[in-house]
Amino acid sequence: MENKQQNTTYNFTAGPAMLPVEVMQQAQKEFLNWQSEGASVMEISHRSKGFISLMQLARHNIRQLLDIPNNYHVLFMQGGARAQFAAIAHNFLGDNGKALYLTSGYWSEMAAKEAAQFGDVKTRSILDEHSSNKKIIMPDLSQEAQDLRYVHYCPNETLDGLALFENIESPYPLCADMTSCILSRHTPINRYGLIYASSQKNIGAAGFCLVIVREDLLSLPRLPMASVLDYRLAVEYESMYSTPCTYSLYLASLIFEWLLDKGGLDAVQDINHKKADKLYQFIDASPLFHNTIATENRSHTNVTFTTGDAKQDERFYINAAHSGLIGLQGHKMQGGLRASLYNAMPEAGVDALIQFMQEFTETYQSVSN
Amino acid sequence: MENKQQNTTYNFTAGPAMLPVEVMQQAQKEFLNWQSEGASVMEISHRSKGFISLMQLARHNIRQLLDIPNNYHVLFMQGGARAQFAAIAHNFLGDNGKALYLTSGYWSEMAAKEAAQFGDVKTRSILDEHSSNKKIIMPDLSQEAQDLRYVHYCPNETLDGLALFENIESPYPLCADMTSCILSRHTPINRYGLIYASSQKNIGAAGFCLVIVREDLLSLPRLPMASVLDYRLAVEYESMYSTPCTYSLYLASLIFEWLLDKGGLDAVQDINHKKADKLYQFIDASPLFHNTIATENRSHTNVTFTTGDAKQDERFYINAAHSGLIGLQGHKMQGGLRASLYNAMPEAGVDALIQFMQEFTETYQSVSN
Repeated sequence: MENKQQNTTYNFTAGPAMLPVEVMQQAQKEFLNWQSEGASVMEISHRSKGFISLMQLARHNIRQLLDIPNNYHVLFMQGGARAQFAAIAHNFLGDNGKALYLTSGYWSEMAAKEAAQFGDVKTRSILDEHSSNKKIIMPDLSQEAQDLRYVHYCPNETLDGLALFENIESPYPLCADMTSCILSRHTPINRYGLIYASSQKNIGAAGFCLVIVREDLLSLPRLPMASVLDYRLAVEYESMYSTPCTYSLYLASLIFEWLLDKGGLDAVQDINHKKADKLYQFIDASPLFHNTIATENRSHTNVTFTTGDAKQDERFYINAAHSGLIGLQGHKMQGGLRASLYNAMPEAGVDALIQFMQEFTETYQSVSN
Repeated sequence: MENKQQNTTYNFTAGPAMLPVEVMQQAQKEFLNWQSEGASVMEISHRSKGFISLMQLARHNIRQLLDIPNNYHVLFMQGGARAQFAAIAHNFLGDNGKALYLTSGYWSEMAAKEAAQFGDVKTRSILDEHSSNKKIIMPDLSQEAQDLRYVHYCPNETLDGLALFENIESPYPLCADMTSCILSRHTPINRYGLIYASSQKNIGAAGFCLVIVREDLLSLPRLPMASVLDYRLAVEYESMYSTPCTYSLYLASLIFEWLLDKGGLDAVQDINHKKADKLYQFIDASPLFHNTIATENRSHTNVTFTTGDAKQDERFYINAAHSGLIGLQGHKMQGGLRASLYNAMPEAGVDALIQFMQEFTETYQSVSN
C-alpha cells in the first residue's frame, strides 16, 4: 500500500483541491467494503437504505454546520457550479423577469454571461475603477428603478483572489456563488435567497453542486428546463430524481463530519483567518512577491501573488513542486501564483510555503546581486 | 485494511453497479498518491498535465474498444443520461425541428417525455401489443411523411430487462440511450448519429455521461441552452469547459484498460452472452421463477424475473442478500426481481445465483407440499 508522504507534500491547488488526510485515509480503508455492505459505497444503489441514510445524514450535518433555517432547502445538484449559472435563470426568471449581476472578477462575469442567454440580465461592476489595487465598492441597491427577481454576486473570486466579507444590503433576493468560500467561515444564510457551491473545494471531490434555496423562491415563474437544472424536482425527489454522483456525496458526508468534529465553522474560521494572515503578512514584507488586492478584499481561501515576472513565477512554482509544495501556478486566464488555503490545508502547510518563499527569495537575491 | 470478501459477495445491482475487483484494488492502492503526484487523482487540477494525459488516454482507449470512426467525437458530459434527454433536443431540434421517439419501456418513455418539453417530439411504441410476452416489432421508418432531425430509442431497457439486438434501418440519424448495454457487446457506431451512456454501469462509477456524436450533427440548428448541455462547447474544450467529475473519469480510464486487457469487446461479448444464457435457461426450466420477455428481446445485461408473488419475491431477495447475493430487488416502478450482469460480474457470480435459486426453489417446494 502506497501512502501519502504527509510531511513532505502540501497541495495548494484551487480545485479539485486537497482533501483532509484523515478523511482520505478512512475512505481508503473502507474503499472496497462500506459499512459491511460487501461492496464499495460507489457500487450500491442510490435507492438503497444505506445510501439514503448517508444522504439524510449529510443533509442534517450541513444544516448544522451552516445553521440553515427551516425555510431553506438543501439540494445536491448535478454538474458543478456552472450548471447553476443556467439553473438560477431558468428557475427564477420566467418569461419576463429581470436580474442584476454584480461583477468583481472572472467567475461573476461568467455567471452573468451564461444567465444573459436566458433572460433580461443587467451587469454592474462593483470594482473601484479608480483604485490601483483591486478593491470592491459596496453596491447601493436601495435605489434600483427596476423590479428585480434577484441580485447575483460572487463573494469569493477564486481566480482573482478577491473576496467580499461584508454583507450586501439588498431589497431583492441575493444569489451567491460561494464555490470557493463555502464552509470556510460563518455565513448568515437568512440574508440570502440562494447559495450555491460546487463540491471540488471545501466540500470534497468534483461531481455535484450544493444549492441552498429559500422556499418562497421556488414559486417564481420559470422557463422550460432540463430536469437536471430543476430545483422543484430536486426538492420533490430529495436530490435523487436522477442518479447522483454517489462517491462524491459520500466523501462530502465524511467531510461534514470531520468539520463538526473539529468544532464546526467557529474553529475553522479562526484557523483559516490565521493561515491567510500569516501568508499575506509575509507577502507584504517580501522584497520579491506582491499581491494586488486591497487589504479588506483579500480572499482567505485563494491567496494570489506574483513576482511581477512570468518567468520568475514559473521558476517558483516548478521549484516549489519539486519541494513538495504543489499546485501553486495561477489560473491560465490570470497568470502569476496562487495558494489555495481550503479547510484541508493545515497551518503547517502555510509555514512550509512561507519557508520556501523565504529560501527562494534569498536565492533570487544572491543571483541578482 | 478491510478487504472485500470476493468469494462470498456478488453484487447484482442495476446501477450504480459492481466494478471489476482488480480495478477497485488498484484504485484503493493508489488512492492517496496517484502516479507519484503526492496527492490523490481527485485532488489534482483537471488542467494539470497528469489529468489531461489521463483524459487523452481514456478517449484513445474508448475509441479503440468501440472502434469509433474519425468523424465521431467522444465527449464526457456532466449529469448522467437524464441530462442528455434534454441535451439532444437542445442541440438538434432548434426552433422547428421534429424528432421521433420509439418507446419500448420505462427509460425510452422518460427520454421522450423530457424532450417533448423542448420541441416537436412524436412518440411511437415499438412493443407488440398483441403479444403475451413483451416483444419488440422492428419499426419501418422508410415511409415517414415528416422530415425528422433524428429518431431516438433505447436498445436496452434497464428496468424492463428488454433489449433490441437488431439494427434499426433509419433514413434519419439514430440517437440511442445505451446506458446499460454500452461496452457489453459490439456496437456498429457508424449506424448511429449519437450514442450516450451514463457512467454508473459498464463504464464505472456515477458522475458523467459518455456521448459519441457524429460531426455533422453539430451543425444542426440549436436552442439556447445551459453550457453543461452544449455539445459544441464540449468538443471545443475537450469535455473540460467546466470541472469534470475527475474521480469517476479516472475509474473509467482504468476500466477501459481492464477491458482491453481482457481482449476487448470480442471477449467480453462472448462471456456476457454465456452468463445471460445460463441464467435464462435456468429460469425457463424453473417451476418457481419466470421471465416475461420474448426470447429474442431478452437483455443480456439486465435479467428480470419473478415468482409472480410479491411477498415470495421479497423473501427471495432478502434471503439472497444474506447469502452474499446483493442487489436483486427489481426497480420500484416494476417490482419483481432483477439480476444485472454487467462486465464486472464474473461467471462464478451467475453460478452462485443459480445455485441459490435452486436451493430457494427446493425450500419453497417442500413448504408448499
